[in-house]
Amino acid sequence: MSETKTLATYLVSSRLEDIPEEVRHESRRALLNLVGCAVGGSREPAVETALKALQPYFGKPTARLLARPEQMDPFYAAVINGISSHVFEYDDTMPKNYIHPSPPVASALFAYASANRVHGKDFIHAFLLGFETEARIGNAVYPAHYDAGWHITATTGVFGAAAAVGKLLGLSTQQMIWALGLAATQASGLREMFGYMAKSFHAGHAARNGYLSAVLAQSDFTAGEHSLEGPRGFAPVTAAKYDLSKVTSGLGRDFQIKDNAYKPYPCGLVVHPTIDGCIDLYRDYHVAPEDIRAVRVRVAPLVLDLCNKKDIKRGLEGKYSIYHSAAVGLTRGKAGLQEYTDDAVNDPKVRSVRERVTATADNSITEDQSHIEVETVDGRKLVRFVEQSLGNVHRPLSDSQLEDKLRDQSIPLLGEAQVEKLIALCWKIDQLEDVSEVIQATVRS
Amino acid sequence: MSETKTLATYLVSSRLEDIPEEVRHESRRALLNLVGCAVGGSREPAVETALKALQPYFGKPTARLLARPEQMDPFYAAVINGISSHVFEYDDTMPKNYIHPSPPVASALFAYASANRVHGKDFIHAFLLGFETEARIGNAVYPAHYDAGWHITATTGVFGAAAAVGKLLGLSTQQMIWALGLAATQASGLREMFGYMAKSFHAGHAARNGYLSAVLAQSDFTAGEHSLEGPRGFAPVTAAKYDLSKVTSGLGRDFQIKDNAYKPYPCGLVVHPTIDGCIDLYRDYHVAPEDIRAVRVRVAPLVLDLCNKKDIKRGLEGKYSIYHSAAVGLTRGKAGLQEYTDDAVNDPKVRSVRERVTATADNSITEDQSHIEVETVDGRKLVRFVEQSLGNVHRPLSDSQLEDKLRDQSIPLLGEAQVEKLIALCWKIDQLEDVSEVIQATVRS
Repeated sequence: MSETKTLATYLVSSRLEDIPEEVRHESRRALLNLVGCAVGGSREPAVETALKALQPYFGKPTARLLARPEQMDPFYAAVINGISSHVFEYDDTMPKNYIHPSPPVASALFAYASANRVHGKDFIHAFLLGFETEARIGNAVYPAHYDAGWHITATTGVFGAAAAVGKLLGLSTQQMIWALGLAATQASGLREMFGYMAKSFHAGHAARNGYLSAVLAQSDFTAGEHSLEGPRGFAPVTAAKYDLSKVTSGLGRDFQIKDNAYKPYPCGLVVHPTIDGCIDLYRDYHVAPEDIRAVRVRVAPLVLDLCNKKDIKRGLEGKYSIYHSAAVGLTRGKAGLQEYTDDAVNDPKVRSVRERVTATADNSITEDQSHIEVETVDGRKLVRFVEQSLGNVHRPLSDSQLEDKLRDQSIPLLGEAQVEKLIALCWKIDQLEDVSEVIQATVRS
Repeated sequence: MSETKTLATYLVSSRLEDIPEEVRHESRRALLNLVGCAVGGSREPAVETALKALQPYFGKPTARLLARPEQMDPFYAAVINGISSHVFEYDDTMPKNYIHPSPPVASALFAYASANRVHGKDFIHAFLLGFETEARIGNAVYPAHYDAGWHITATTGVFGAAAAVGKLLGLSTQQMIWALGLAATQASGLREMFGYMAKSFHAGHAARNGYLSAVLAQSDFTAGEHSLEGPRGFAPVTAAKYDLSKVTSGLGRDFQIKDNAYKPYPCGLVVHPTIDGCIDLYRDYHVAPEDIRAVRVRVAPLVLDLCNKKDIKRGLEGKYSIYHSAAVGLTRGKAGLQEYTDDAVNDPKVRSVRERVTATADNSITEDQSHIEVETVDGRKLVRFVEQSLGNVHRPLSDSQLEDKLRDQSIPLLGEAQVEKLIALCWKIDQLEDVSEVIQATVRS
């Protein structure tokens, strides 16, 4: 049996009762984190610009957005939800494959659930299946696919969204195979877009195209039936090396969401160990910016591959700059949303330290680690080696840290009372008769 | 200067006056052919199914389709136009790179022009620029990109549609760079979909995404500025070998549309030489199906790579079957629309001959050629070697053959009088104050 068919068969036959409570709880954590990110990102220029540009094309206003009052058809709602939830780089990440798994899947599902009554049990079931689909396809093609230059969140996210919406639509196995095929043939997204609005659009594009794939398949719009493994299928075309047994092996038993990680800082995951170390050094020594002569960072090679932007002017670029991230850690002792604004990037103190940071790729250092040496004007050398950064799978954010992260992102927009209500709804999402209660609670009342 | 920027600069500064009349005439031929294909394909199941599935999501009905009465927003009009014009495999082809160039570009442009008043001069100018964009990007990445499994019509078509609509929107050079970036990051389409409805969707998907790219860029939605040549850009990510000088060299002087070819048969271009030869053998010998013992075809390796489907049941599959194409040539002496229906594929006479066809890849035979040997039951061997098939760049269809092709496809739907009016409008398209006159003439009145 082909991997595509095995996956489709599992998606169609899966029952929520067969999924353990610890896995379901991880879906609540992922959705709570996602909702906070969508609220936090909902007023970003990428969101406002896309809304303004696309508004003339919206269909009948049957759907609602996360965190915004505009109404539109569910496909565009999926696009905008995707941009909102991904734009801050604060969303979840799978350290195994660098997918940001929740935005494509949840953006499509919330769009669907805003236009169609969906019980919370069905919602988290569809979410878990979409997550499993994109994560497993990602595992199968990582790292060759990512190294080639594909933004893996986009290219696998479209499969996740198709699987998730397809489950809610009750597709047959044949239709699910077509939905995966239509997703495969719409899979796109280049890493060349990192640092631009187009990057956050990727999550929306994947959400919308996956949703569209499920809708077309439901009407028996046909597509290639070996879209993963066929000789011109997704895996051979987009990855020089791949292992499709990772799509099927342990399906329904080993849930990938258990390896999901939540970021404490709104920037690329690979710079987090460096931020941790710099914040520690700030706390322990509190060196004034003018007393720093040089900052030398040694990191895994991938870190520089992804986050090597030094001469930057915009907050968005700061998210891909190990230099900026080290500088805010050392000068402000934190790396929150306020450290990745245009103002922060152009703050003279931050800039002066950023210019003195050098970073070296070191094969002996893992992607969880960072070695930081701060040399002071008076000749001291302050050193920190970070073994595991906060938020990775071995030092996960607790439920209450996740709540705090949501509060940080949401209170400015929604106020405390509504945010507490939103948190409570997220923890009991699978008991809700209608998931639109959650969506409602993300919009300022 | 980067290739992306050079291309964008050219697109923005190009003037129609600088484009020779012979090139403009080729654009009229391409558009006439495209319009005929869209009319001919407009009632196919892929079109009907997509319309039914997507209708609930249509935006305000400001746009019109080619050949159908439904109204909708222009993005979905681009999708449906793309399916209609590509589904019969009767559209134009660039033998240099196997792109079907007109469907993605013209589908977007007709959708735009149905919702916005566009002068014919501006329309053919935008069309020529879109054509140039996709053809040149295709030249730069062909053959590695195509060999890898990308459906090059889709992956380069999105650039063509973005450039064409971007020209009509009057984008600045910076915006055009972003539009090309947004196109690059939406470029997708796998050859694994050949023989399924998803293949024709590719043309619509490319048209819609290119159009969307231009619209987003017009609102300053930013994207990577080295989307073609950057290390994670379109060319390095999707082609093991590429030559981006083909994008820029001779821009504005060497027009790629001069190498465009129009198909006399509604199926994959690479089987056309075999069809020509089989039709010749039918005409010269008229062997009855039951008198054929074996048919041996020798063709270029790519032909079997693309059209090796033997055990087929649906008309759409017949378009990718050298066996079926040889069989209809030998049993019916033609290969028109009626030879690629479900009925034709299941016609016992055709099937019996199809089962006796064998095809061999032969490196000494070019993609323009075919060697056919028919062995009869009474032991005769009838041989034909085709050097150049009808419709290739060296034996192009004449203007009047193109008109006849449009008549064949359109008269059943529109009747003779309206078809003659449509033909006349296509030949004078650049004199029209409003291109919607052409669109109007494709819809049954």
